[in-house]
Amino acid sequence: MKQVNIALLGMGRIGKIHFKNIQQNFPGIKILAVADPLYNESQKEMYSNIFFSENVDEVIALPEVDALLICTPTSSHADLIEKGIKKGKHIFCEKPMDLSLERTAALSLMAENAGIKLMLGFNRRFDPDFMQAYKSVRAGAIGDVQIVKITSRDPGLPPIDYIKNSGGLFMDMAIHDFDMARYIMNKEVVEVFAKGLNVVDKAVGQAGDIDTALTTLIFEDGSYAVIDNSRKAAYGYDQRLEIFGSGGMIKVENNLLSQNILYDEKGIHYALPMDFFMDRYARSYLNEMELFIDALLNDKEMPVGGSDALKATQIAYAAKSSMETGRPVKLSEVEMKSK
Amino acid sequence: MKQVNIALLGMGRIGKIHFKNIQQNFPGIKILAVADPLYNESQKEMYSNIFFSENVDEVIALPEVDALLICTPTSSHADLIEKGIKKGKHIFCEKPMDLSLERTAALSLMAENAGIKLMLGFNRRFDPDFMQAYKSVRAGAIGDVQIVKITSRDPGLPPIDYIKNSGGLFMDMAIHDFDMARYIMNKEVVEVFAKGLNVVDKAVGQAGDIDTALTTLIFEDGSYAVIDNSRKAAYGYDQRLEIFGSGGMIKVENNLLSQNILYDEKGIHYALPMDFFMDRYARSYLNEMELFIDALLNDKEMPVGGSDALKATQIAYAAKSSMETGRPVKLSEVEMKSK
Amino acid sequence: MKQVNIALLGMGRIGKIHFKNIQQNFPGIKILAVADPLYNESQKEMYSNIFFSENVDEVIALPEVDALLICTPTSSHADLIEKGIKKGKHIFCEKPMDLSLERTAALSLMAENAGIKLMLGFNRRFDPDFMQAYKSVRAGAIGDVQIVKITSRDPGLPPIDYIKNSGGLFMDMAIHDFDMARYIMNKEVVEVFAKGLNVVDKAVGQAGDIDTALTTLIFEDGSYAVIDNSRKAAYGYDQRLEIFGSGGMIKVENNLLSQNILYDEKGIHYALPMDFFMDRYARSYLNEMELFIDALLNDKEMPVGGSDALKATQIAYAAKSSMETGRPVKLSEVEMKSK
Amino acid sequence: MKQVNIALLGMGRIGKIHFKNIQQNFPGIKILAVADPLYNESQKEMYSNIFFSENVDEVIALPEVDALLICTPTSSHADLIEKGIKKGKHIFCEKPMDLSLERTAALSLMAENAGIKLMLGFNRRFDPDFMQAYKSVRAGAIGDVQIVKITSRDPGLPPIDYIKNSGGLFMDMAIHDFDMARYIMNKEVVEVFAKGLNVVDKAVGQAGDIDTALTTLIFEDGSYAVIDNSRKAAYGYDQRLEIFGSGGMIKVENNLLSQNILYDEKGIHYALPMDFFMDRYARSYLNEMELFIDALLNDKEMPVGGSDALKATQIAYAAKSSMETGRPVKLSEVEMKSK
Repeated sequence: MKQVNIALLGMGRIGKIHFKNIQQNFPGIKILAVADPLYNESQKEMYSNIFFSENVDEVIALPEVDALLICTPTSSHADLIEKGIKKGKHIFCEKPMDLSLERTAALSLMAENAGIKLMLGFNRRFDPDFMQAYKSVRAGAIGDVQIVKITSRDPGLPPIDYIKNSGGLFMDMAIHDFDMARYIMNKEVVEVFAKGLNVVDKAVGQAGDIDTALTTLIFEDGSYAVIDNSRKAAYGYDQRLEIFGSGGMIKVENNLLSQNILYDEKGIHYALPMDFFMDRYARSYLNEMELFIDALLNDKEMPVGGSDALKATQIAYAAKSSMETGRPVKLSEVEMKSK
Repeated sequence: MKQVNIALLGMGRIGKIHFKNIQQNFPGIKILAVADPLYNESQKEMYSNIFFSENVDEVIALPEVDALLICTPTSSHADLIEKGIKKGKHIFCEKPMDLSLERTAALSLMAENAGIKLMLGFNRRFDPDFMQAYKSVRAGAIGDVQIVKITSRDPGLPPIDYIKNSGGLFMDMAIHDFDMARYIMNKEVVEVFAKGLNVVDKAVGQAGDIDTALTTLIFEDGSYAVIDNSRKAAYGYDQRLEIFGSGGMIKVENNLLSQNILYDEKGIHYALPMDFFMDRYARSYLNEMELFIDALLNDKEMPVGGSDALKATQIAYAAKSSMETGRPVKLSEVEMKSK
Repeated sequence: MKQVNIALLGMGRIGKIHFKNIQQNFPGIKILAVADPLYNESQKEMYSNIFFSENVDEVIALPEVDALLICTPTSSHADLIEKGIKKGKHIFCEKPMDLSLERTAALSLMAENAGIKLMLGFNRRFDPDFMQAYKSVRAGAIGDVQIVKITSRDPGLPPIDYIKNSGGLFMDMAIHDFDMARYIMNKEVVEVFAKGLNVVDKAVGQAGDIDTALTTLIFEDGSYAVIDNSRKAAYGYDQRLEIFGSGGMIKVENNLLSQNILYDEKGIHYALPMDFFMDRYARSYLNEMELFIDALLNDKEMPVGGSDALKATQIAYAAKSSMETGRPVKLSEVEMKSK
Repeated sequence: MKQVNIALLGMGRIGKIHFKNIQQNFPGIKILAVADPLYNESQKEMYSNIFFSENVDEVIALPEVDALLICTPTSSHADLIEKGIKKGKHIFCEKPMDLSLERTAALSLMAENAGIKLMLGFNRRFDPDFMQAYKSVRAGAIGDVQIVKITSRDPGLPPIDYIKNSGGLFMDMAIHDFDMARYIMNKEVVEVFAKGLNVVDKAVGQAGDIDTALTTLIFEDGSYAVIDNSRKAAYGYDQRLEIFGSGGMIKVENNLLSQNILYDEKGIHYALPMDFFMDRYARSYLNEMELFIDALLNDKEMPVGGSDALKATQIAYAAKSSMETGRPVKLSEVEMKSK
């Protein structure tokens, strides 16, 4: 591909990030159209050379569009992917593809058969710190990896309505960490043991979800990863990674709001972690878009594809099942549902 | 008790620590006798007012002795405790009391019935950093505790012969962490899920043990702790604790060999953690002895007693059973064996 | 002013930063023209709505231009400022205004008399970390300030030709730190004691300059600041600040390349500081441009004006004189030269 | 010498430290006698084999005494050293030898001529962190040293009466840092520029002293050290060292009260530095005593001798003179007074 014309579907929080990143950093890439039921006239005026529409189908049908960026609510992802594949558009889609295992598997296969390039927005892989950790591990800096420990805690609860439609903590939140564990380990998960708690807010439990979880992932060679999640850390967005191997350890620590330290009679005080994902992972969104565009322009494989989405979704299913049954659940039990 | 006369059984690595601590810091406390098959004449000469003997029974029988410090190999602990109880001596014993659950339970009960004060050497509870973390948690600094994470890695393998008689990683090494989790959480464990690996040295596997483990402890209210152990961290003795609660988090970081930092063209280099337990936990050994002596002098309850030893031993059994069966094991399954 | 039309003079390293910052972040601000003897055709084509010229005078003369951004070599600053003032343009100019005290003083006065808004590019004031330190100090977080300590070391020597025309280390490099000390202390310097060394590269000494310096600034109330500079820190760009007061201390530490830490048998290794000013101070360039534009649009005072430039230049003169004479030099001795 | 019999003169705060260190750690070394006007009967009873006396002369005269530890108030140091030399005793003396330069020089010479081993208590040299920094620098870890920066702040004012008899901040407090700078640089100071402030408590100024100071030391090759002192840091005892060289930097950071970190909604909170010199430098006192005893037993040179005391005292004189005259003062100006 010599040039990429993009249509952006969904101009919410994350859609705006991609929009701005492309406008500012990829002068050669053209955003041809934006579909959003809530686009406003001032946007339309400001970007007079972009076609704004309330109608997603209209935008997908534009023949000049090469690729879709799907940033709509989760419930619409699968249909939009399917439509895009049928129209021969390459696709970047925010995670997850779908809450159903069957549909996720089917779409992944459909894209593959159609020769469609499909990338999923597991953006944390493209955070500079995590990328460097990945490279160091691959380069042998800590020998054979024996355990990966991920701490992933949000600064606060999302709205309960969001939680109700999220697919639950494992599918909505921990799925990023499941993907990260696979990415760092470079191996496949075979079994999952998970525990969940509702201790942040009773409303979460009433909505049928948990807000706190601990998940153990067992890999094919017996090594393991452990992930602890919370919807609410009092001190903010806590995103840490620890990789222990035969030759040493790599830690990725939180990015703090500043490098200032206050010393007073009560203690030595450092700044809190960066507020939330839009700041903490700002660079990862830019990097993932660069890789998506590069894969399109230079006919490369997508760095995170449909099969990665499927694996992470299977793990989320297995985690939920383990929590519900109180026993470890093998991924092979869940994989059958994907077929 | 107005005065305490102590007999020290076993003058190995840990016996010497207690000996020196008492001599240097408790001028009013008298070490009357030392029993060790390998004591040497130069010791005898240096401490002319101490009765040195190769014969443990002879020493236990001394009527002036009020309390025994049992620092002999694990396999002799139970018999010496039993003899001590029968002679009416108060007892400090290094962990574990015994590799058998039944005997541990029986001795704990026997001491209680005989009015014998029995303290077990879970020294890490008395490390200043961990004690402070405990106090902060109790004082509500982080609200309700939701998860405790313990990292506990040794700097290298002990001799294989030691491993063969150790009762295995869970009983020998992780037992400290099981006790720490109970101590910090101030709650009882009800279920254990554990995984083990033999990745440090094949000789460990040949000796029937693992060298790497991950254990999840479930407490009575559903909250949990996760502990990862390794017999060999390339960077030394790694002893960390993280306690996360509704109001924040407390971390206990490693004590480093120095506070020096080298900046050069390759990076910013900090010192390694303190070498091993004798340095890292030096203060904890002193503190535990102070508490033991204080409990004797002032007729207080021991800070870690027979029931604590029994609980930690039950958890170790459950962990081993979980690893072997591949499923979570309830402590109630193990407790029956203790009756 | 309702709108600001900008002409950018000089499209070198720093000019490009301002160009990109304005294009990406201030959609309402128009870069009307760019003057650079080395502009190239591809730039001209890419930005077809910008007037590119090799001729600075031609650009300054454009009547639609409201403000000049002067990013040319130091030797041309004064003439361009003077031309701009005469044409009634507001001015942002990189430091220093001029190597001569007399001219700096004259231009500062000329701008003031002509009602021209003049801002100098002491960008470090607008670094988020330093701004926060400033605010904390003003808010009384550490009581009365007693000493400010600045560490300011470059990662490597600039070309010797650059050094020859730079005005010397105090005027070229330390001037940023002199301004920072005044900014944080919010007081005026009355005396300077400075030492200089040529230890990085003999070529610097042959060019008549030093590459390493230590400067003590004495303020009007007797309090002091101490600044150490080096043209070459083996570990990279070292930019630290320490402010000690009656109630505590604030430190601004280096921004590191990553938050990754490697533990191996040799030590605990952190990443190096960010490479150089374009990365380390990226945000400060954006912030200073925002403040410049805000002052123009809303008729506010410039946050760093001609008198600030003059003071910093006087301190640089006093430092050089102190180094040459071996004694502390009062600013009043230097101020006379400015009149 | 095959054995060392010690007499301890002065059983105050520092005398007790040495007493305990010797009793606990050097079983072969005998404290024969203690002279203190305030010794009490309970001490006498507890150490029945030590001769306690109120009379210093009586103790110095004891023929069995090989070495004196002089831990009395500063004003008595010189007379006791002189008496000790005349009786042929080796001497360890707390800093400074005397407030007068002439007397310090004379005693240093007298000891040398008499073949008396004389060690001064510049204990910080023997702190493990500083020793390691020294060794790293000597081993070339950071190339040629270009600047040494010492931060040395006490947690609070001593009693005003103490200050009145202390010789002033430079002689009483900064003298440790002057010695440290010489030690690390391994070079001689040739010039001093110092500034002083009275900002902690007016009573200090009324007593004729300062409580805050900044001192620049210039070494024979033009390199320099800078030391900032305060009698009161709100956050406690601040003892840091930074050594910058052609190949990198070594920092010695504060030793903190614990390795615990609290994360809450206000920030990330570390523990304060260790309270004061008795804790922070506990190990250094033990190390210096070990070196003193080793030098006596094995006829080695003392690691800090009379000439070191003289140099540090000269620097303190030069600093005071510089502060009073407002100009840099050469050590050669001060050295004349020592002759």
